[in-house]
Amino acid sequence: MGKIICCGLGPGDPDLMSVRAAREVRGARHIAFFRKKGHPGQARRIVEGMLAEGAIEYPMEYPVTTEVPSDSADYVRLLDGFYDEWAERLVMLASDNDVVVLCEGDPYFYGSFMHLHIRLQGRAEIEVIAGIPGMAGCWNSVGRPIALGDDVVTVLTGTLSEDELVRRMRNSDALVIMKTGRNLDKVRRALASAGRLADAWLIERGTMPGERVVRLSDVDDTDCPYFAIVLVYGEARRMKAAE
Amino acid sequence: MGKIICCGLGPGDPDLMSVRAAREVRGARHIAFFRKKGHPGQARRIVEGMLAEGAIEYPMEYPVTTEVPSDSADYVRLLDGFYDEWAERLVMLASDNDVVVLCEGDPYFYGSFMHLHIRLQGRAEIEVIAGIPGMAGCWNSVGRPIALGDDVVTVLTGTLSEDELVRRMRNSDALVIMKTGRNLDKVRRALASAGRLADAWLIERGTMPGERVVRLSDVDDTDCPYFAIVLVYGEARRMKAAE
Repeated sequence: MGKIICCGLGPGDPDLMSVRAAREVRGARHIAFFRKKGHPGQARRIVEGMLAEGAIEYPMEYPVTTEVPSDSADYVRLLDGFYDEWAERLVMLASDNDVVVLCEGDPYFYGSFMHLHIRLQGRAEIEVIAGIPGMAGCWNSVGRPIALGDDVVTVLTGTLSEDELVRRMRNSDALVIMKTGRNLDKVRRALASAGRLADAWLIERGTMPGERVVRLSDVDDTDCPYFAIVLVYGEARRMKAAE
Repeated sequence: MGKIICCGLGPGDPDLMSVRAAREVRGARHIAFFRKKGHPGQARRIVEGMLAEGAIEYPMEYPVTTEVPSDSADYVRLLDGFYDEWAERLVMLASDNDVVVLCEGDPYFYGSFMHLHIRLQGRAEIEVIAGIPGMAGCWNSVGRPIALGDDVVTVLTGTLSEDELVRRMRNSDALVIMKTGRNLDKVRRALASAGRLADAWLIERGTMPGERVVRLSDVDDTDCPYFAIVLVYGEARRMKAAE
């Protein structure tokens, strides 16, 4: 009887993987990971050079990505079928082997493995290994504390409405904005409305080759950064000497 | 010319330290860490059994902890002097050696190393190694995703006023409450006022020996948990099949 081990890989630099995750990745005989069709996949790229000889790879290729609107019934049906099928295959594999599933960042923090996690409940033994969340890799890249003292940190997704973004950006010491991608213009407008644009950083490919750390106000409108997180640093509200 | 390497140790389980941090800890000849006088210190405990033979340890012992009120002038003066002195000693040490400074969790996320970080700017080469924040270790201990889809996550400290806690607890999908300790009763009252107490978990010593994961409403009033974080999980607002 095997189990399904979801390894949080951390922010991207393989050296920032946990000792436990690195051991599982190196020892894995069966290893699965999500990717877009025709792409190597970010998770697989992080473990390049680490896999054991003879390890069997299972790329879980999304049936669609941006070709079909993500709120259409077709899209939801296709993706649901895809997760159902892979949950089934992983359960079969785990009946007599351990299977490692790769996950960028920390699996329990906005991780796509959760679509499988829900479907695997009660059907296989699951182990999840925590990773450094992508945001933590990014705030380390700037080399400043994201929060100290009584700072409030708010994590937002660029997918929220502009109104909600503005309201929440006005009302937090530190900000982390995930899922920027095609929402970056909206995020920038919201930060400007909230009076926080001058303090915002964009970190693209944090801790990875090609890392870029820039002030968001210096990013060109036509620029479309990949794997990017936007950060606004806290000011160490009521920080005490004891901390 | 050496440097000062601040190693984020992660949430407590040494196996959740990053590969890079573990390598630095094992290879260190000079190793410093904060602790309360007469106590082994949490950071030092995490690396037990990992230090090289002949490694020189520098326990940085707080001159006061709870004996003097933390908002008194005496307290601030004592602590300031303590950090000044240790910054000076670390700079001297780093003039011809690498020095590893241990830090629980992620150093840039409410980390006490930041009192030294400020004082070391421009005086020594500093390297900071990211770690899994304590909160991520804790939310993994419950075995549920803290946030998915469009969930908003708010990180609060138990040191905030009860009014501010209530207002912010009402207005977020997921919640992380740090620095609970002697503020736990206030945190509990605030969660009750915000209608979130039934959903709150308390995780004590997350990922460490003696870990305890309980519903906050089941914690006795007289109980005073150590190294505890309170969590309220998000409900995966508008989660899409694509994520």
